[in-house]
Amino acid sequence: MPLRMSTLFLRTLRDDPADAEVASHKLLVRAGYIRRSGPGAYTWLPLGLRVKNRVEQIVREEMEAIGGQEVQFPALLPKEPYEATGRWEEYGDALFRVQDRKGADFLLAPTHEEMFTLLVKDHYSSYKDLPAYLYQIQTKFRDEARPRAGLLRVREFIMKDSYSFTVDDAGLDQAYADHRGAYLRIFDRLGLAVVPVQAQAGAMGGSRSEEFLHPSPIGEDTFVESDGGFRANVEAVTTVAPEPLGEAALAGLPPAQVRDTPDSTTIATLVDVSNQLMPREGRDWEAADTLKCVVLTAVLDGNERRQFIVAVPGDRDVDLKRLEAGIGVLLEVAGEPGVEQATEADLARHPSLVKGYIGPNNDSALPFFVDPRIVTGTTWITGANALQQHVFGLVAGRDFQWDGVIEATEVRDGDPAPDGSGPLHTRRGIEMGHIFQLGRKYAEALDLKVLDQNGKQVVVTMGSYGIGVTRAVAALAESHHDEKGLAWPRAIAPADVHVVATGKGEEIFAAADQLVADLEAQGLAVLYDDRKKVSAGVKFSDIELIGIPTSVVVGRGLADGVVEVKDRVTGEAQTVEVSGAAATIAGLVRSA
Amino acid sequence: MPLRMSTLFLRTLRDDPADAEVASHKLLVRAGYIRRSGPGAYTWLPLGLRVKNRVEQIVREEMEAIGGQEVQFPALLPKEPYEATGRWEEYGDALFRVQDRKGADFLLAPTHEEMFTLLVKDHYSSYKDLPAYLYQIQTKFRDEARPRAGLLRVREFIMKDSYSFTVDDAGLDQAYADHRGAYLRIFDRLGLAVVPVQAQAGAMGGSRSEEFLHPSPIGEDTFVESDGGFRANVEAVTTVAPEPLGEAALAGLPPAQVRDTPDSTTIATLVDVSNQLMPREGRDWEAADTLKCVVLTAVLDGNERRQFIVAVPGDRDVDLKRLEAGIGVLLEVAGEPGVEQATEADLARHPSLVKGYIGPNNDSALPFFVDPRIVTGTTWITGANALQQHVFGLVAGRDFQWDGVIEATEVRDGDPAPDGSGPLHTRRGIEMGHIFQLGRKYAEALDLKVLDQNGKQVVVTMGSYGIGVTRAVAALAESHHDEKGLAWPRAIAPADVHVVATGKGEEIFAAADQLVADLEAQGLAVLYDDRKKVSAGVKFSDIELIGIPTSVVVGRGLADGVVEVKDRVTGEAQTVEVSGAAATIAGLVRSA
Repeated sequence: MPLRMSTLFLRTLRDDPADAEVASHKLLVRAGYIRRSGPGAYTWLPLGLRVKNRVEQIVREEMEAIGGQEVQFPALLPKEPYEATGRWEEYGDALFRVQDRKGADFLLAPTHEEMFTLLVKDHYSSYKDLPAYLYQIQTKFRDEARPRAGLLRVREFIMKDSYSFTVDDAGLDQAYADHRGAYLRIFDRLGLAVVPVQAQAGAMGGSRSEEFLHPSPIGEDTFVESDGGFRANVEAVTTVAPEPLGEAALAGLPPAQVRDTPDSTTIATLVDVSNQLMPREGRDWEAADTLKCVVLTAVLDGNERRQFIVAVPGDRDVDLKRLEAGIGVLLEVAGEPGVEQATEADLARHPSLVKGYIGPNNDSALPFFVDPRIVTGTTWITGANALQQHVFGLVAGRDFQWDGVIEATEVRDGDPAPDGSGPLHTRRGIEMGHIFQLGRKYAEALDLKVLDQNGKQVVVTMGSYGIGVTRAVAALAESHHDEKGLAWPRAIAPADVHVVATGKGEEIFAAADQLVADLEAQGLAVLYDDRKKVSAGVKFSDIELIGIPTSVVVGRGLADGVVEVKDRVTGEAQTVEVSGAAATIAGLVRSA
Repeated sequence: MPLRMSTLFLRTLRDDPADAEVASHKLLVRAGYIRRSGPGAYTWLPLGLRVKNRVEQIVREEMEAIGGQEVQFPALLPKEPYEATGRWEEYGDALFRVQDRKGADFLLAPTHEEMFTLLVKDHYSSYKDLPAYLYQIQTKFRDEARPRAGLLRVREFIMKDSYSFTVDDAGLDQAYADHRGAYLRIFDRLGLAVVPVQAQAGAMGGSRSEEFLHPSPIGEDTFVESDGGFRANVEAVTTVAPEPLGEAALAGLPPAQVRDTPDSTTIATLVDVSNQLMPREGRDWEAADTLKCVVLTAVLDGNERRQFIVAVPGDRDVDLKRLEAGIGVLLEVAGEPGVEQATEADLARHPSLVKGYIGPNNDSALPFFVDPRIVTGTTWITGANALQQHVFGLVAGRDFQWDGVIEATEVRDGDPAPDGSGPLHTRRGIEMGHIFQLGRKYAEALDLKVLDQNGKQVVVTMGSYGIGVTRAVAALAESHHDEKGLAWPRAIAPADVHVVATGKGEEIFAAADQLVADLEAQGLAVLYDDRKKVSAGVKFSDIELIGIPTSVVVGRGLADGVVEVKDRVTGEAQTVEVSGAAATIAGLVRSA
């Protein structure tokens, strides 16, 4: 049966919704695919549900093709398994926690690592049972601080999450490669450009990890690529550090000198004062010659605020997200601490710090970390830990030491790729998928073991792999539209053909009815604008707004025995004999 | 691709799970369709997911056939619309309530009346837009006090819920009839026997309402039917009351007399004492001649406990569920109060009540309600509100009055049907579906109006209609099994044919491989037991346990060019030439 617009639950809107900023949000609402139902929550309307289902089906087919087996877990899960792995706490505010009538704790799952681990533990006991790839396409929940951009960042969304269980690392590598291949095929079939980039594993734990980013100016993720093919999420970029000096060279460096530097609490003023006080031969001092010591606060589980200092070259800004990726390990704390600028209250806890003149070797007991560029033998202008004083020619590794090295600064266009493949370009992207080598973290925490080939109990090796179905619909709308509306790829359009009858004659509607029946007989899905009291102008606008790949107008041309067939993307229109129109259109649809 | 048991995520179990009491729970777990994942929560395993999806598809097709349009709402919803209709409170403990990180209130929706109402309000403004039938197949949540019986009573389940929007009552009647028809077709296609019975609308509000009950000894609902065709949920049965006496007859009745009745605090002792003290001519006093005045407590929102007295014939027990269906209206309170026996503490609040000797006209200020059998002119032996005293010949409407009439007693086998269609038989059933004429309750609360034919704003008339998908799977397992395992109806079996290869010869597996390919070429879905190190006995047991309608064993017979085809339900086996086996089997499957 065609979708008849005379009865279809659809009201297209002329105006953008007031809260919409990005194209996919505006157009999916205006074209009647989704409707807001609460903060960060949308209802799938009939057209939207069709697109979503088609995306899911493509995901499902490619998962089955690599041997994935579909299951489905509840969304509301008991706390205990998540406590065993530490994620009950680690997830922080992003986890929706629920109590039942007896006061027992539950959560609305953001992902299901724990439950899949337990399920496999329940079923399997031998290496012969492995590998197993299990997946689900399921509703997930995340208490987003700032839901935004329509379907791009919501509190309830549909994800395909899959998990691989293998007896060893070689098995994991194979599972990872299988999923990587499946993901590339999925995005290809969806018509969605993605760039796989190296990523930090984050809250999931584990080792190797890649994100599939859809390049987009509205993306929340920044990634880099070099002409030589290096690609990474900005959190995963490692800084190319200079070679440290050997001991001999170190000894030959002039001693550091402290100077009065009144009113030089910014890098810019410090550079000016330096060039006046201690001019360098050959070229002026620059911001990159100064060492900026920044006091930051790591926010641990339970909201404990722990301060630390990070030293970075003065021409670089600290990047809190990159710091967050590494700070947990350096501070030796569990979970994923957030990192913030230290507040006045934070600073007040460390009165020995001389604000504006902080340098290495300060009297605070705070951990002192450095950017990878601060290697032994590099020489710096930096705070002397005394009011209105700086020190010049302070040599790393000779005059000061550090408690650890951390990726602390923003990645810039032109920075060198870590693999030597040339300068990096930064781009923005939307995260569409993420694959992780989890290793044995979850299996260990939940005691998932099997007998290996030698009859020995071994901990199972796992991977986890996610694709955002909801977000894919948004990204597809984001990347397939023009100023007039949506323009879906054929593989996921809610219909193959949009047939519009315009005019007043009964014969026009009769001919359109017949054409719709013929198109359906050809196996095509049809959206049929059979509305009688709606102007041709409105109908034509709806063609553009709704974005079915091929439209057919049955109207004035009918007197000459023709209909007009138009391609939504190219805008190319052609006149087709109404007699054989269905076959012709089916040919167009299938050849595209 | 066939489901290959060598790799299928399936481990059938010999033993029933320890917590399982009903057949569907035992067998669905043992046969690897579902797995417990928490209290009242199950994971769909690959076989179970297939059954569930087939049920959903049948529901979907029949909903589309009556013009239903599918949408999908979030499960996590804002409080406000549910507050507007009062359901945020009324749902009581059964509602999972959630707060987000900002402390805003949300709920995990048990049904979506409010959201559908708002969605239609967002879209429609004229009678011309109506009728609209919208539905979703979606995950629902309910904080069950006692999850039990596997999938039959769980906290997270899948339901099809649909809602009709019409301009008037006639439209609602049509929508109701459309859904009723669709439901009967759905259950018929599923192979699930159901009895539609009249029901109370309960928390939904509204007027006409029917439940579709699957008769089953383990059902939690009791319903009645008469030979003349009356069918109702036991809560919806109205008592056939005697005719009240007119004033003249009333005046002719002898006056009531109070007598000492020591130690007669039970109906049995009271009947004995009555026959000694005041013997009746013709026949002895019986329990039915006494009036039992029971103190009960209605538990209102906020746990307020309000006592009331209900008077019932002494041979009848009070039925708390039937009382609950009517008490809210009589007490003029919102929501659905629970009704309990009054506790000692409750009774202590009303010291004037003489325990064991309570009758009408007692000194408490408690509301006094009566069973419908207590009509003007009926004469009773009852408590005299004084220790060790009863009153004889107390005439209703002359000697005492009441504050209201309520269905207070259990319905018994043999009670007359309210429509005069003969004595009632009581049966137990599992609620599979429920259809409601909501009327204008939700539309009024949320201000959903349209312009009618005369250009006047009218409140939209609504219906709501639910089918439990999860529960249908359980009920199908409950009604389609034998002592050896499941025996699915063809329409929802996880595969059409279960092919088993038994024996050691490579040629057996080669022949089975070929047969499976041929069956798939015939369009059949195949479960293929290709396990090499599993005994024939285990494989045969799995055939019975898993319950695919048709099995084919490729084994010893192959030497003679035959395979054995067996029907799971009838047990009939036949030998089929392997050469044309696929076509023969396809014929069997399709003709069944």
